[in-house]
Amino acid sequence: MDALKSWLKRSVRGAAGPIGRGLAALGIRADWVTLAGVVVAVPAALAFYRGAYLQAFGWLLASALCDLFDGAVARAGGGNGTKFGAALDSTLDRYGEGLVLAGITLGLAARAAPEWLIGVSVLVGIGSFLVSYVRARSEGLGIPCEVGILERPERLLLLLLLALLGERSAPWILSILALLSHITFLQRLAVVRRGSRGA
Amino acid sequence: MDALKSWLKRSVRGAAGPIGRGLAALGIRADWVTLAGVVVAVPAALAFYRGAYLQAFGWLLASALCDLFDGAVARAGGGNGTKFGAALDSTLDRYGEGLVLAGITLGLAARAAPEWLIGVSVLVGIGSFLVSYVRARSEGLGIPCEVGILERPERLLLLLLLALLGERSAPWILSILALLSHITFLQRLAVVRRGSRGA
Repeated sequence: MDALKSWLKRSVRGAAGPIGRGLAALGIRADWVTLAGVVVAVPAALAFYRGAYLQAFGWLLASALCDLFDGAVARAGGGNGTKFGAALDSTLDRYGEGLVLAGITLGLAARAAPEWLIGVSVLVGIGSFLVSYVRARSEGLGIPCEVGILERPERLLLLLLLALLGERSAPWILSILALLSHITFLQRLAVVRRGSRGA
Repeated sequence: MDALKSWLKRSVRGAAGPIGRGLAALGIRADWVTLAGVVVAVPAALAFYRGAYLQAFGWLLASALCDLFDGAVARAGGGNGTKFGAALDSTLDRYGEGLVLAGITLGLAARAAPEWLIGVSVLVGIGSFLVSYVRARSEGLGIPCEVGILERPERLLLLLLLALLGERSAPWILSILALLSHITFLQRLAVVRRGSRGA
């Protein structure tokens, strides 16, 4: 599983490389691509809110591609392989994801989804945030924490699947996301606990 | 302003000290108090959702007191002045705050608040989370980042005020919270930027 994941990561990075170098050659900077990723998360969130899931899929895909290429542009020398670039990138990723999950949750509420499903959707939002937060907090304490079954790429793939299949798939996909994000969160807390004892 | 803030912090810590020592003497551990703070955030969130703001005030106050005393218990030797204790504390604070803000937002949506206000409420949630996230991320990159006009205690005070004044105060208080949390978020990003250049 981990071997598959790292193979996928390498392949995707390899494919993104030439495009990243092309963008960097055009003078496009990594920070702009990061910012574009959040900007297109706004129409994605609004489309989820209105129940236009197929439109949301398009915007979300655009956002995911920005997310993929900002790293490639940075590696190709298009500015900001800096600490600030790294912090901005992950912060804005969280911002975009927050907007999208709020759009999904409020859309369910507006179309009178059952309360348990609205609650699950809230838990997806909190769980996704915390998976990232606990890692950042852990690294701030000097404990590396890059583990977990549901990291950002997997989360994004499940959200793309939700957008593609439409709102009737929400009970299944959101339940899976809520469960796996909380498991990942607990996996990372366990890492902090072990690291804290070791110190 | 900063002098007032640090005086208030010292005073509150001083007042919490004896209670923290008392709880620690009873064998109560800091982690349990932290956990209790999240547990009572659940009825607070549900009360906000149902529009029972005065009930929400009571639960939120209980949650704030737990948040205050877990540090006092830890300082009095009741376990977990460890890195794990620190990470658990801030992670669970975020969890409780996320639940409460989701309760407020979904309550507004359920009572057909204007869409701009629901949007503002979403921005309060994302802004509050990012204020904490960017600091954790920054510290992970080795840049201290304890600045900003709206840190957790001020956020909590404004939420308590909202609960006390009731939902008709939501347009004002949530707008202030959204604005100040985003300003704080930008202040912290600026700190990362300066720190990143220095490195």
